[in-house]
Amino acid sequence: MSILERITLEHGSGGALSRQLTEQLIYPILSNDSYRELADATAFESLGRTFITTDTFVVDPIFFPGGDIGTLGVFGTCNDLAVCGARPLYLTLGLILEEGFPTADLRRVMESVRASAERAGVQVITGDTKVVPAGKGGGIFLNTTGVGEALGDHLLSVTNIREGDSVLVSGPVGAHGLAILASREDLKIGATLRSDCAPLFPLCQALYTLGESLRFMRDATRGGVAAVLNEAVAENQSCGMEIQETAFPISGTVAAASDLLGLNPLEIANEGVMVAVVAPQATSQALSLLHSFETGREACRVGTVSGPNPGRVILETAVGGRRILDLPRGLLLPRIC
Amino acid sequence: MSILERITLEHGSGGALSRQLTEQLIYPILSNDSYRELADATAFESLGRTFITTDTFVVDPIFFPGGDIGTLGVFGTCNDLAVCGARPLYLTLGLILEEGFPTADLRRVMESVRASAERAGVQVITGDTKVVPAGKGGGIFLNTTGVGEALGDHLLSVTNIREGDSVLVSGPVGAHGLAILASREDLKIGATLRSDCAPLFPLCQALYTLGESLRFMRDATRGGVAAVLNEAVAENQSCGMEIQETAFPISGTVAAASDLLGLNPLEIANEGVMVAVVAPQATSQALSLLHSFETGREACRVGTVSGPNPGRVILETAVGGRRILDLPRGLLLPRIC
Repeated sequence: MSILERITLEHGSGGALSRQLTEQLIYPILSNDSYRELADATAFESLGRTFITTDTFVVDPIFFPGGDIGTLGVFGTCNDLAVCGARPLYLTLGLILEEGFPTADLRRVMESVRASAERAGVQVITGDTKVVPAGKGGGIFLNTTGVGEALGDHLLSVTNIREGDSVLVSGPVGAHGLAILASREDLKIGATLRSDCAPLFPLCQALYTLGESLRFMRDATRGGVAAVLNEAVAENQSCGMEIQETAFPISGTVAAASDLLGLNPLEIANEGVMVAVVAPQATSQALSLLHSFETGREACRVGTVSGPNPGRVILETAVGGRRILDLPRGLLLPRIC
Repeated sequence: MSILERITLEHGSGGALSRQLTEQLIYPILSNDSYRELADATAFESLGRTFITTDTFVVDPIFFPGGDIGTLGVFGTCNDLAVCGARPLYLTLGLILEEGFPTADLRRVMESVRASAERAGVQVITGDTKVVPAGKGGGIFLNTTGVGEALGDHLLSVTNIREGDSVLVSGPVGAHGLAILASREDLKIGATLRSDCAPLFPLCQALYTLGESLRFMRDATRGGVAAVLNEAVAENQSCGMEIQETAFPISGTVAAASDLLGLNPLEIANEGVMVAVVAPQATSQALSLLHSFETGREACRVGTVSGPNPGRVILETAVGGRRILDLPRGLLLPRIC
């Protein structure tokens, strides 16, 4: 697959084209000895105890059931640190405002950033604001860069994954992306859909106590669980995964809405759900740790790391068939985060 | 002055409205015990030895004489660390691409980020890419967040400034903003204008050897030297400044172009020029340190910190008059960085 001559919306979808853009164009140019892995956050300083991550938010609409661009900006970046085994501490905030954007909306977003930062236990410590002419922006775009401190010496990585490990998800999938879509398109079915946007650090901190039995965590944002599972096996290379479609916790509303819209809930973005891979003997302990949190109440084991199909995620479907669950392709939902 | 109901381009100009938006709306909501001063970068961790800063770049056009959005993204953020007395070490890179943006241009910008990072001695260690629909972006916007290590224990701050101190500029002013404007509007006069975009760390590191005689440094970007001087006296409160208009190094091309366009070179953005305030007895040593660098070759003393006019910058004009040099007002040049 060669790189297209122009950027398409699909390049931002979190699916196959996003991955291609990052892996074939951006990363080869920028990679260096401190930027070795395409993980959610990167450790810096000689001891590797400080982590940094960056994320830009272009969600449309900016206010949606269950959150807004401010909530996403804080929780999204904190979650990227948390799943790397770091305690989020500080955030920077970069704003791009479009000429004509209502100041009252800016105030509402800033209040939301403040409240979300308090909830996540982080402090915003520096920022920057730019303004672009009308027609050159999307109201408000927001970048947050997060700094966190490693919880311990155990480094989480896809390279830790072993055949036989359990694959867990921390909660019901698909709510965030569908809530955004319903809100944007004013769909009737959307009335009860709410984004799952939430901080994952408490769950990650609990799982971190499992020590080396905790192999790897990643939050399932753009491209959903399908993207995370595929990235994990692609980066690990020596393992595959066998996943049970029916094992995933999915709310009735999400199941109905995705059915109606022809979307696969495993490919829909979440903002408060993560995938964790743990050693087989730690599975039940990991699940009970997750169940002790409101956001982890419906955590489930959804599959197993397997040997025979390296680099592949095999999905056992609801009707008993087996098919490859690929990195999402085609135009998913643009601007969901 | 009450806050306008909608964002205007002037809110992004670096002048009075930018300052109002930050000071009256954003900062009061977000301020906390780790975000105490509106400086270029903020120290974090108990020892205050690590600095972080963030900057978003929306320059138009993205390629211009003397640089491009990639050069700006790297040098701009590194300079914000450098003027705080920190050695730039790591950068994060957040991209917002507009649907339809040529992939070849993205590659060219990434190559420029790589080359500029090498020149500035920093490494890009993590990144993120979002895509927005056509008509909702400006081709490419870029956020860089920079992490740096304090050069020593001496903290630079506007609060260090004393009556009698010397105000220095490191080089000729006004080139960057005019080069962008000439390039954007295809002005004939622009043929010989080049952005001054350059890393300031070597100059900052040299001045840092002056110890406590070095009070404060800030790069003169949006709003130009006028904005920096006004911010300094506004934040310091107890001092004012007396500045000589004729003392500023200004190239013939910049002088001619700003005359023709009715712009004040002191209000025009630079990307490789800083203001430094030093103790009177360190003035000549500071200037000879600056003169040893190509970018500091034309460094000059342009004025003095004064007691009688706290919070004010008084400009002695070319014709011998005296007037207040205020924070720039009105629409300056949008999207110059």
